[in-house]
Amino acid sequence: MTLLQRCFAYLLLLTVVGSVRAQPLPREEIVRLTDAALPAALAQLTEFLAIPNDGHYPEQVEANLAWCKATFLDKGFAVTRIATPGMPLLFAERQIDAALPTVLFYLQIDGQPVDTAAWDQPDPYQVVYKRKGADGTYATVPTPIPAATGIPYDPELRLFARSASDSKGPAVAFLTALDVLAAEGLAPAYNVKVIMDFQEELGSDDLPGAVAAQRELFEADFLVILDGTRHVSNEPTLTFGARGIATVTLEVFGPRTALHSGQYGNFAPNPVFAAARLLAALKDEQGRVMIPGFYDGVELTAADKLEMNRVPETREDIRVMVGIAENEALGDTYQEALQYPSLNVRGLAAGWVGQEVRTLIPDRVTIEIDMRLVPETPGERQVELLRQFIAGQGYHFVDSVPTEEERLRYPKLISFTSSLGSVPFRTALGTPIDRWLTAAISHALGKEPVRMRTTGGSQPLGPFVNRLGLPAVSLRIPNPDNSIHAPNENLRLGNFREGILECIGVLVTPIQ
Amino acid sequence: MTLLQRCFAYLLLLTVVGSVRAQPLPREEIVRLTDAALPAALAQLTEFLAIPNDGHYPEQVEANLAWCKATFLDKGFAVTRIATPGMPLLFAERQIDAALPTVLFYLQIDGQPVDTAAWDQPDPYQVVYKRKGADGTYATVPTPIPAATGIPYDPELRLFARSASDSKGPAVAFLTALDVLAAEGLAPAYNVKVIMDFQEELGSDDLPGAVAAQRELFEADFLVILDGTRHVSNEPTLTFGARGIATVTLEVFGPRTALHSGQYGNFAPNPVFAAARLLAALKDEQGRVMIPGFYDGVELTAADKLEMNRVPETREDIRVMVGIAENEALGDTYQEALQYPSLNVRGLAAGWVGQEVRTLIPDRVTIEIDMRLVPETPGERQVELLRQFIAGQGYHFVDSVPTEEERLRYPKLISFTSSLGSVPFRTALGTPIDRWLTAAISHALGKEPVRMRTTGGSQPLGPFVNRLGLPAVSLRIPNPDNSIHAPNENLRLGNFREGILECIGVLVTPIQ
Repeated sequence: MTLLQRCFAYLLLLTVVGSVRAQPLPREEIVRLTDAALPAALAQLTEFLAIPNDGHYPEQVEANLAWCKATFLDKGFAVTRIATPGMPLLFAERQIDAALPTVLFYLQIDGQPVDTAAWDQPDPYQVVYKRKGADGTYATVPTPIPAATGIPYDPELRLFARSASDSKGPAVAFLTALDVLAAEGLAPAYNVKVIMDFQEELGSDDLPGAVAAQRELFEADFLVILDGTRHVSNEPTLTFGARGIATVTLEVFGPRTALHSGQYGNFAPNPVFAAARLLAALKDEQGRVMIPGFYDGVELTAADKLEMNRVPETREDIRVMVGIAENEALGDTYQEALQYPSLNVRGLAAGWVGQEVRTLIPDRVTIEIDMRLVPETPGERQVELLRQFIAGQGYHFVDSVPTEEERLRYPKLISFTSSLGSVPFRTALGTPIDRWLTAAISHALGKEPVRMRTTGGSQPLGPFVNRLGLPAVSLRIPNPDNSIHAPNENLRLGNFREGILECIGVLVTPIQ
Repeated sequence: MTLLQRCFAYLLLLTVVGSVRAQPLPREEIVRLTDAALPAALAQLTEFLAIPNDGHYPEQVEANLAWCKATFLDKGFAVTRIATPGMPLLFAERQIDAALPTVLFYLQIDGQPVDTAAWDQPDPYQVVYKRKGADGTYATVPTPIPAATGIPYDPELRLFARSASDSKGPAVAFLTALDVLAAEGLAPAYNVKVIMDFQEELGSDDLPGAVAAQRELFEADFLVILDGTRHVSNEPTLTFGARGIATVTLEVFGPRTALHSGQYGNFAPNPVFAAARLLAALKDEQGRVMIPGFYDGVELTAADKLEMNRVPETREDIRVMVGIAENEALGDTYQEALQYPSLNVRGLAAGWVGQEVRTLIPDRVTIEIDMRLVPETPGERQVELLRQFIAGQGYHFVDSVPTEEERLRYPKLISFTSSLGSVPFRTALGTPIDRWLTAAISHALGKEPVRMRTTGGSQPLGPFVNRLGLPAVSLRIPNPDNSIHAPNENLRLGNFREGILECIGVLVTPIQ
C-alpha cells in the first residue's frame, strides 16, 4: 500500500466511523510497521546503550546528550540545550499545528552506575542477548538482529545491558515510533515536546528549576513519562502517580560507651530494649502505624476502589511471590495498601553480630526509617508527627551525641535527623489524559492497559511533575523482572516491541 | 635485724599475743622486705613480659612454660608438665609439712593477642613506664628501676605491656613473695601448689580434664586465683565467684528477600517490628526480665545484703562513671544487681544503616543475646526458658532458613541457636577461706579488702573451679583502669607493690 492508498483508506474510514483522527492507523498496520522497524530499532538501541551513561561523569552526560541532539535534529525537531546549575538538559520540540494540543514526553537517558564484575557479561554497555532456560537461568544466544527486515523473532529473548529497561529501551521505542510515522509521511496527532534528563538516577535535581526558569518552553497539555516498569503481570501499564518519600535517622542512646555486659548487666540499661519499645509502639501487629493523624486525609472512594480491583492481581499471588504467610492489613487490596503512607525500618544496628559479636551493652541503636508519602500526607507533616510521637514516649531530643549533662539528666535520649526526598504526585483516573492514553494503547495492542492509581515507590520526578502542574501519566514498557538498578539489567524483546506499538498508538491518537 | 634477732622477736610476740603462726612477720617488716625486693621484682616482671604469650602459638606457650619451669625449680619446687589434649599445663608444688593444709594457687600466664599498631609504644612486650598527666594522657618516663635497692618510687607510675595486669604482674608478685620468704629463711605457712595456665584467654578448655585425670595432684584445701582486676575503688579486693554466660542467636524472618520499601510498604510485614515486639516483651521498663521463672532460685539473705552494702561504691557513682541517668531496678545496690542472671542484647542488625542505607524492607533481623548466669540459674535452664517464652509469643522455630512451605504457612518465623559458655561459680563469704584471706590482707596492708560475692563477668575458670570442688577466691591485684584485653594494657606500680605485700601476707598467714 502506497502512502496515497493509505491516505485514501483513512478518508474512507473517516467517512464510516468518524474517528480517523483518533485511530488513523489500523492495528494491523501498526503491527506490520513495527515488525518491519524492529531490526533497525534494536540496532539503534544497541548503539545508544554502548554510550556509558553514569550521570556522575560529565563526559558521559555530554556523549549521550550529543547522541540525542543529533537524533532529534535528524527527525526534524528543534533542539535546545538547557543549562542548569548542574548538568544540562536537552529539550526537543516539533510543532505540528499551533491549534493542536501539545504533549510533553519525558525520557530518562542516564543509568545507574555499573559494577562490571557483578555482571554476567564482559561489558554492561555492550548488548548481550540471552534466553531463559527451563531451570530459570539465562544462556547467551547469537545476536538476533537479522540483516533484512521482517524476520520473525522470539519475544521471550532478552537484551542485557545497563539502561536496557531504565530507560534507553523505552526512549528508543519512542524514537522508533517517530521514525515509523516519518517514513510513512504521517505526523503526530498533536505537537510534541520532549525533555531529556541525564541525571534521573541522581535525583533530577535541576529539572524543577529549569521549568521555573523557562515556563513557556514546557507549556503543554499533558506529560507522558516514558519511564518505569510494568505491573507484575507484565500487562501494558499506565501509572498515574507515585508515592513520595521522607527519611528519618534515629539514634537511641545508652551508656557513654559500650559496656561489658557482665560488669554492667542488670545495671546499665541497654538502649536496644528502649528502641524496641519505641518501635513496637509505632505499628500494631497488623502493620498499621499507630502515630495519631498519620493517615489523615487519605480517603478512597468506591470508584477508586473499583479501579484498584481491576488491577489483575491477588494478595495471595503477591504473598507467594515475596514469601510471606500474612500481609499487613491496610486496605482491602494490594493496590489499596499503596494509597496510604507507610513507615518502614530500612536499617537497624546496635553492637555487633555474627563473627564480630562481643559481649557488650551497646552505647546506641541506630534506626533508619523511610516513610512513603501520598499527596494527602506531605513529608513535612509526617516527619513532624513522628517526632511528636517520639516526644510523647518521653524522649529528650539531642542534636547529635548527648552532652555529659544530658546523659545524667535524661533517661531517654534520642537524636532525630530527617530528610525530605521525592514528593508524591498523582493524576486522577477517568480524566482526559487517562481516556486518551487508554484508548491509544487499547487500539495499538488490542487490550486495555492496567491502570494503577499510584506506584508504591517514589520517583525523583515528583517536584518536576508538581512544578509543571500538568496531568501526568507514566507509560511503562519494560518487563517487571528486568533487574533495573542491579547487575544484569535486561529488557524482554516482546516488551520492546509492544513499547513501539504503544508509542505509535499514542503518537497517532488525537487528544479529544 | 638479723634472722636470729627476728626469730627471737617472733618468739617474744608469740609469748605476748599467742598469734605467731597467724602473723609471723609484722607489717613493718613485710613493707621493708617488699620495698627492698621491688627493683628485682620489676626487673623480673620486665623479663617475663618480654616473652610473647599469645596462647594461639605453641612456640610462645613453650617459651613461657620453660621460663616458669626454671623459675619454680630455682625456688625448690617440684615441677610437673601436664599433657592435655591441647596445650600443656605446668604444675609446681612445695610440700612444707604433710600435716599442714595445702593451698592451690592459679596463675594465668598467657595474654590476649596484640595489635601492635594500636599500641602507643613500639613493642607491646617491651615494658614502657608512663606517668599520667593532669590532662589524663600518659607520658613516657625513664625506666624507674634503680641499680641499688631501697630507692623510693612513685606508686602512680604505670608499667605498660601486654599481660602487665592480666596476669603476669600478679604472677611475679607471687614469685617475689616466695623469694622474699626464701631470702629470709621463712617457709610458707602451708603446703603450696601452683597451677599455671597458658590458654586462659582461649577458654582454659583443658583445665577441667586435667583435674579429672590427676585428681590427687590437685588435692588442696583452698584455691586462690591470682587473676582479675580490683574493685573500681582500687581498694584491695577479694572476689568469691563469677557469673557464667550462655548466648543465643535469634533470626526473625521476614520476606524471602529484602523488598523495595515502596513497592511493598504497607503489604509485606517488616520483621524489625516483630523483633521489636519480641524484645519489648522480654524486659520491662525497669530492666527486669519478664520471662517466667528467669530469676527462680536466687535469694539474698540479710547477711548477703549487709556484705554487699560494705562494698565501697554508690549507684550514683557508677551511673556517673558510665553516663546514665537511671540504672535498672534489679536489687537495691549495684552488687545486688550482679547476684541475678541477666539478659542482654549485644548485637542487633537488619538491613543497612548510615552510608549503606537502602530503602528496603529487610528479610531478617539478627539478634545476639548474652545471658549472664549465677549458680542458681544454670545456662541450660535459662536458654530453655527463653525458648519457651519465644514459643509463647507465637513463633514457629526453623532450623536455619525457612522452607518455602514454612514461609507461606507461619506468619512468625524464627531461628534459635544457643551456646553455653563459662559456668557460674561462687564460694560463700564468712567461711574459713574468707576469714584466712581477709586476715592475711588486713595484716599485710593495714586495711580490710573489699569482698565481692560475685563479679558480673564470666571467667573461663568456672568449670575448673567447679571440678576441683574447693573453696575458691580471687585475690585481685591490678588497678581497675588497666585496659586489659585492649591496647596499652598497664599495671600501676602501687598495685604491684601492694600485690607483693598481699602475697607475702597470704603466704605467711597460717590457715586456722
